[in-house]
Amino acid sequence: MRLKLGIWLVFVLTVGLLAGGSPAAIKADEGMFPLSELGRLNLQAKGLQLRPEEVFNPQGIALVNGICKVNGCTGSFVSPKGLIVTNHHCAFDAIQKASTTERDLLEKGFLAREWTEEIPAPGYTMRITESYEDVSAAVLAVVTPEMSFTDRTKAIERRRKELEQAAEKTNPGLRAEVAEMFTGKTYILFLYTFLRDIRLVFAPPAAIGVFGGENDNWEWPRHTGDFAFMRAYTAPDGSSAAYSPDNVPYEPKRFVQVAPQGASEEDFVFILGYPGRTARHRTASFLRFEQQVRLPAIVDLYAWQIAEMNAAGAEDRSVAIKHAARTRSLANVEKRSRGQIQGLNRTTITADRAAVERELQAYIAADSGRKSRYGTTLAEIDAVYADMTAAAQFEINFRELKSACRALALGSTVYEAAVERAKPDLEREAPYMDRNWEQTRQQLLLDVKDWHPPTDERMLAGMLERLASISAAKEVPGLQALLSSPDLEAAARSLITATQCGQPEFIESGLKMGAAELAQLPDPLMKLAIELYPKYVQLRDLDKEREGRLARAYGDLIDIKREFQAASFVPDANATLRLTYGFVRGYSPVDAIYKKPFTTLKGLVEKTTGEEPYITPAEVLSAWRTGEFGNFVAPKLGQVPVALLYSTDTTGGNSGSPVLNARGQLIGVNFDRTFEATINDFAWNADYSRSIGVDIRYVLWITGVVYGGDNLLAEMGVAGTK
Amino acid sequence: MRLKLGIWLVFVLTVGLLAGGSPAAIKADEGMFPLSELGRLNLQAKGLQLRPEEVFNPQGIALVNGICKVNGCTGSFVSPKGLIVTNHHCAFDAIQKASTTERDLLEKGFLAREWTEEIPAPGYTMRITESYEDVSAAVLAVVTPEMSFTDRTKAIERRRKELEQAAEKTNPGLRAEVAEMFTGKTYILFLYTFLRDIRLVFAPPAAIGVFGGENDNWEWPRHTGDFAFMRAYTAPDGSSAAYSPDNVPYEPKRFVQVAPQGASEEDFVFILGYPGRTARHRTASFLRFEQQVRLPAIVDLYAWQIAEMNAAGAEDRSVAIKHAARTRSLANVEKRSRGQIQGLNRTTITADRAAVERELQAYIAADSGRKSRYGTTLAEIDAVYADMTAAAQFEINFRELKSACRALALGSTVYEAAVERAKPDLEREAPYMDRNWEQTRQQLLLDVKDWHPPTDERMLAGMLERLASISAAKEVPGLQALLSSPDLEAAARSLITATQCGQPEFIESGLKMGAAELAQLPDPLMKLAIELYPKYVQLRDLDKEREGRLARAYGDLIDIKREFQAASFVPDANATLRLTYGFVRGYSPVDAIYKKPFTTLKGLVEKTTGEEPYITPAEVLSAWRTGEFGNFVAPKLGQVPVALLYSTDTTGGNSGSPVLNARGQLIGVNFDRTFEATINDFAWNADYSRSIGVDIRYVLWITGVVYGGDNLLAEMGVAGTK
Repeated sequence: MRLKLGIWLVFVLTVGLLAGGSPAAIKADEGMFPLSELGRLNLQAKGLQLRPEEVFNPQGIALVNGICKVNGCTGSFVSPKGLIVTNHHCAFDAIQKASTTERDLLEKGFLAREWTEEIPAPGYTMRITESYEDVSAAVLAVVTPEMSFTDRTKAIERRRKELEQAAEKTNPGLRAEVAEMFTGKTYILFLYTFLRDIRLVFAPPAAIGVFGGENDNWEWPRHTGDFAFMRAYTAPDGSSAAYSPDNVPYEPKRFVQVAPQGASEEDFVFILGYPGRTARHRTASFLRFEQQVRLPAIVDLYAWQIAEMNAAGAEDRSVAIKHAARTRSLANVEKRSRGQIQGLNRTTITADRAAVERELQAYIAADSGRKSRYGTTLAEIDAVYADMTAAAQFEINFRELKSACRALALGSTVYEAAVERAKPDLEREAPYMDRNWEQTRQQLLLDVKDWHPPTDERMLAGMLERLASISAAKEVPGLQALLSSPDLEAAARSLITATQCGQPEFIESGLKMGAAELAQLPDPLMKLAIELYPKYVQLRDLDKEREGRLARAYGDLIDIKREFQAASFVPDANATLRLTYGFVRGYSPVDAIYKKPFTTLKGLVEKTTGEEPYITPAEVLSAWRTGEFGNFVAPKLGQVPVALLYSTDTTGGNSGSPVLNARGQLIGVNFDRTFEATINDFAWNADYSRSIGVDIRYVLWITGVVYGGDNLLAEMGVAGTK
Repeated sequence: MRLKLGIWLVFVLTVGLLAGGSPAAIKADEGMFPLSELGRLNLQAKGLQLRPEEVFNPQGIALVNGICKVNGCTGSFVSPKGLIVTNHHCAFDAIQKASTTERDLLEKGFLAREWTEEIPAPGYTMRITESYEDVSAAVLAVVTPEMSFTDRTKAIERRRKELEQAAEKTNPGLRAEVAEMFTGKTYILFLYTFLRDIRLVFAPPAAIGVFGGENDNWEWPRHTGDFAFMRAYTAPDGSSAAYSPDNVPYEPKRFVQVAPQGASEEDFVFILGYPGRTARHRTASFLRFEQQVRLPAIVDLYAWQIAEMNAAGAEDRSVAIKHAARTRSLANVEKRSRGQIQGLNRTTITADRAAVERELQAYIAADSGRKSRYGTTLAEIDAVYADMTAAAQFEINFRELKSACRALALGSTVYEAAVERAKPDLEREAPYMDRNWEQTRQQLLLDVKDWHPPTDERMLAGMLERLASISAAKEVPGLQALLSSPDLEAAARSLITATQCGQPEFIESGLKMGAAELAQLPDPLMKLAIELYPKYVQLRDLDKEREGRLARAYGDLIDIKREFQAASFVPDANATLRLTYGFVRGYSPVDAIYKKPFTTLKGLVEKTTGEEPYITPAEVLSAWRTGEFGNFVAPKLGQVPVALLYSTDTTGGNSGSPVLNARGQLIGVNFDRTFEATINDFAWNADYSRSIGVDIRYVLWITGVVYGGDNLLAEMGVAGTK
């Protein structure tokens, strides 16, 4: 379908140009394209003014060498000295950790005027894609027809780890990751430059970086200055190193040129980044599972937990701060899930996919060879989702028990670590392998700091109440007695009161103990964690079995779909480097409403109420009143633009991605999608899939004019803040 | 200012046309113009294709002879046989009263295929403006310098009644009303044809007529089919008569031609109608009183009463129905008030008016003659609002006591009727004069039907609780003892339980009693009403005193403002016939949002959830699915338009007004304003003041195609429903 659309677009473009029309009618294309696809996209016909090899060149240096992955986000190098621009929400943890009561960087913002003032961001890593190699044959060679589905999954997992270890040995200093591109079908080994000394350079106050808060999250119009600057450092010899005052700024092979003039409506734009996860190749049965089972359950569970945390925080600001990160994270997913349910209900995505599957099934049935090879493929997939649907009420709530109750989560992880760390490295679950262990341990020590026992009591009690009405839960060893307690609240209270699992000291010491030692502790919640552990392992194995079943069936499905549709497909997003393109363009979400593609400083001031989440710092209001706009007024708008909208195909992980103009220059920093575009994860639509970025002019105005970061503008080669 | 703008507009138009540009940039003008102003408006330069005398001709028949006032709304004659189109919400009472459990016209809608099937609408009257005469001199002749302000007001009231009675004597069959145009300054005697036999002809189901309910009230985009058809009848000799089966359809001197092709974006439109009340000439001190005192108090009191009624209705559908009209009415005002507060907070209307007043004061001070004549004018006005602000907490709550508690309101009115009806006719308050008495009595008998004692208990208790914290309330005879009761809820309960004031039988009999007889009744709530009565009379007299003070000062203010600004002004709306013009045009309420001027049937279907208030009747959905659109598709939209937006200057009372194209043909029926335009009452703005009408194509499609009212389309001269 995509290829056909591509041909049609070229036709439209040609006719449009011949007729002297403007190319405004060109539609963007669905797709988060791997770099290997770049050559066949013909982006120059759509507006790109670079040759494909200027974007990506396996034999040399190109634009992608200036793009990096910053933890789960994307960033761009914007100077030869390793300066990175990304989102405020991507730098959030670093800003929060560097803040103290006396020096609240979240509230006040932060600007380093010299390298020595930059603040280390512990836990932050950065990677740059250096090369990739198809290792599908090597991975799939370990699969034998006799294997159980669980063993199939485990064998593939192990082979991927082996390939990674081998690649890292032959490429010292680089990080290797084998990514699954098409489920059960294609595996690519990526090699990354991997840096571990990342520092905070500039963050605007949270009133700018998270302006609008949860109200405006996933919404347009938007006035959020969701950007921050960081810097990557290496050892003096250029090698990757942990933080040291002796380290020096990293010199990227390439950096992205900032375009201080910004973009205009209908401009061609493209994005390079690391989108996390999509499900475009999943079946209609998967969509129905999401729409009817999983997403509604998430909305229900998360809305309840958010309400509990808000209620607890309403009485005590210090409690609210403890819950802030978790509330924000759940609220983000809860709202996205609501958007996805609404999108699936309002569109015909599921019905359309089912229709394609019916046609495919008829095509398969029409030939005996095809029938014997693929006759049951769709049915096998549907059966997995049917199993998951039948088990959902128990599985979702049982898993959530360990997520909602933080102490139980911490205790379980400490116990699992003891079990896993005792195994040979390659046999461990990934978080407990030596190459990941330090990061896992650090995360546990950070998580435990936010523990608030009264909230945890409410969470545990609430989950027990939910599980008490599910018969399968009553058969789980460890839950049987607990769920038959006449007073679940009291039971939860006594467990939380008696446990040490939420204490930092316990995590420290517990991580040094073996499983048997942990089992001897007189801690009732740890005992519960250990009792429940076999059931969680059983569910994990069940997941691997389902993964194995799906891997084989989806691998077949993509083969027969390719044959049937005579088309090639783009793999679903999997946190590897992708390109997507589109146009700066508004949209019409409902009858009689048109959303324009730019918001402005004037709109920001009008939206400012002085109350959360619509507070604007006095420095911004003062510069607005005195008309200090530098060179950053968009002529057509007569205003400094704040945020912009464009029709690219993005998802989570594209946070912080550069929004690039036709010449590959930075005109914005991507940070969100519209509410209607939350269903990008399932399907993209030219009419309403829109991504949201901070306009580069707002980035430069805030940084240079309002907060005096002339040093940074100079470093980026931008002049004229006055 | 307006005149200058007018000149500027002509300039823009001329330049625009010379440059070959479209006249799209013409702005509408602020103004609900009296017909006397028509000549100087130069509407033909703005787009009108009629000569002024084709719109209004004191010596002959013109378009205004086809416009009527239907109770508090406006309507248009659309056939030579007295067929009227107005709003569903204007016909609502008639539809509701004609409904029974067996034959629910609200739910099902109603179509009369023949005159004999049309349903009488008791309580409905209709008037047509026949002529007007300036009687300012005759009215103000009764004012003497020695008079107290209260006496001044009373003398003017009496003179107005005398002039009305005299005019009705010399013009038998016509109704006379003296309207105050400029406060304390200008009085116009209007003569009206006055008809009393009005009947219901066609109403769509409420699911169409109130689609969107309170959610969508004051909002755009809108998909409400807020229209209905009625018909006026006269005695066989053409004279005004009460309902009789012998009556015949009224033959208006003129009717409005329906334009089935509708209008397009940027078309010139104008509206004739009876806008109720604006405050464009009030001072900044008045605006502050509204913004800071009266409107917030209204929002607080009404939101509470709405919540009480909703809570009571949630448990019992029959209770909800009893409260429906009152809830709807309060919700309408509550939301409008919120819109007005928001508008006053977000705009500079108050500050701008204060700035003009400062300039005016400086102009007055610059000349000793002006200073002695007008030096204290603004200060006198400000002092009245300062008094009102100081007294507001008591006065607003004390008045609301009698409004929130229906039984107390009914008892008080019965008692007041006894007191007033004992006076000579000209000395009575207007509702108790012979010419109005029958209508007042009918209204009481209707009001009493919706009495629900448990709600009234909550209302009375709530108001007593509010008054208990106001020291002035504790000094009111009758409240002293009551407010010191230790249990206000119990006190309210015992009053409501023991009273007959909410019983229809009591109203019937009570209205026949004298004041002394009522005072003998063993009814504790009637006793309370009688005890409170002197205080209410005192407040009424205080109002008259304030009115007198304001009348003199505002009369002076308008004189000096005219001199200062060298401009003429348009009087505030006062429920007399006015013209306003504008363009079919969208607007931008906030940054990056543009609201287009048409909604469509497609949008209606998309908004339809199947749950209140977004239910669409099966007949509509079926015609949508089968594509039966008659001739009513707008070519540019490719859809049947549902509602439209235009930049005219309207307010309450313009409900049901015809929206007319440049040739004076009907292209829509006005029914609302946007949320931003709720502050039209204080100031109109070309950027965001937009009114909302049902598109004539939707009216015709629903009436003719969906519900088979071909007879009505034929009567209006519209062909081609297929």
